[in-house]
Amino acid sequence: MRSTLPKAVRDLTQEFLRLPGVGPKTAQRLAIHLLRQPSAVVIKFADALRNLHANVRVCSTCFNLAEDDVCSICKEATRDQKVLCVVEDPLDVEAIDKTDSYNGLYHVLGGVLSPMEGVGVDQLTIKELLERLEKQEVSELILALDQNMEGEATSRYIIDRLGDTPIHITRLARGLPTGGDIEFADAMTLNAAFEGRKRLK
Amino acid sequence: MRSTLPKAVRDLTQEFLRLPGVGPKTAQRLAIHLLRQPSAVVIKFADALRNLHANVRVCSTCFNLAEDDVCSICKEATRDQKVLCVVEDPLDVEAIDKTDSYNGLYHVLGGVLSPMEGVGVDQLTIKELLERLEKQEVSELILALDQNMEGEATSRYIIDRLGDTPIHITRLARGLPTGGDIEFADAMTLNAAFEGRKRLK
Repeated sequence: MRSTLPKAVRDLTQEFLRLPGVGPKTAQRLAIHLLRQPSAVVIKFADALRNLHANVRVCSTCFNLAEDDVCSICKEATRDQKVLCVVEDPLDVEAIDKTDSYNGLYHVLGGVLSPMEGVGVDQLTIKELLERLEKQEVSELILALDQNMEGEATSRYIIDRLGDTPIHITRLARGLPTGGDIEFADAMTLNAAFEGRKRLK
Repeated sequence: MRSTLPKAVRDLTQEFLRLPGVGPKTAQRLAIHLLRQPSAVVIKFADALRNLHANVRVCSTCFNLAEDDVCSICKEATRDQKVLCVVEDPLDVEAIDKTDSYNGLYHVLGGVLSPMEGVGVDQLTIKELLERLEKQEVSELILALDQNMEGEATSRYIIDRLGDTPIHITRLARGLPTGGDIEFADAMTLNAAFEGRKRLK
């Protein structure tokens, strides 16, 4: 497509366009926005990108993102070492750890089983999870995967693979989200909310 | 805020957060997205940022973005040199030039008058426009500024400064946008659409 913009602006627009959720107009606007910022601001952005892969590793124990061989969470001795929370990715760890609901360790699967997207058992850290459960004394395994078909299938697969085990396997509660309107809740959520109802009196 | 993410991810998240329209969750997701891309993709993005300020200049004639001293549009000899279209910024040039409606030259103001945001006459290239109109033979000046208070005020100011002039000063037509529902049009747009109505038969 013919453009009146300088090549450097078009190049940067192309890079923004690669990002998820960024369309052509937004990409262009972001490039022009940065052009109006002081050069130092843009260089700092470039440096942050350059540092990304160089300074991020994967925790050899739980597969969370890490700065060293072991992540900051696995290093914390005060955490309950007998509880493992299985999550899909590092952003789930970040979201759960910001609450005060959980003080155990994590295991990051790196995704969920999804034949449609070519994600099988070998692409995830399920084997590593099973090995970890053999070596480490764990009393509870919390499966905190997304409430959808892939999440369910992955939880089910892990449960099957563990077979007869003394470990308590739990999943997060289902029901209405806080602030959620009953009127707008889908049937699955309402079913779960009724099934899991609690006695008040 | 405490975070379980490595510093390199947090740093990049901060940079994305500076962009207009990007919130904390999106910034984090973009950083993680890039972490999953091959390192070469991210380095290319970093290079595009580094090149931005180094390789973009402002056209000394029309103040559009340029790669050299004069922009690609001012260099085109086949354009109608007697028509000038006054726009707010380079993205307007890009949008107008993608249509086939216009084949003249441009003048980029670099903004519109906005006392609220501290943009006065000296922040814009109005003085340079007036000088240009004295030197260059122009038969029509099209004021293609946004249809809002600031755009109107800026158009009005330019008309006043030009005073008695043989140059035809025009503005873009107002009315319903293509595909626009009358039902959802605001009163100002409807007023303009009625005022500017055209006879069909």
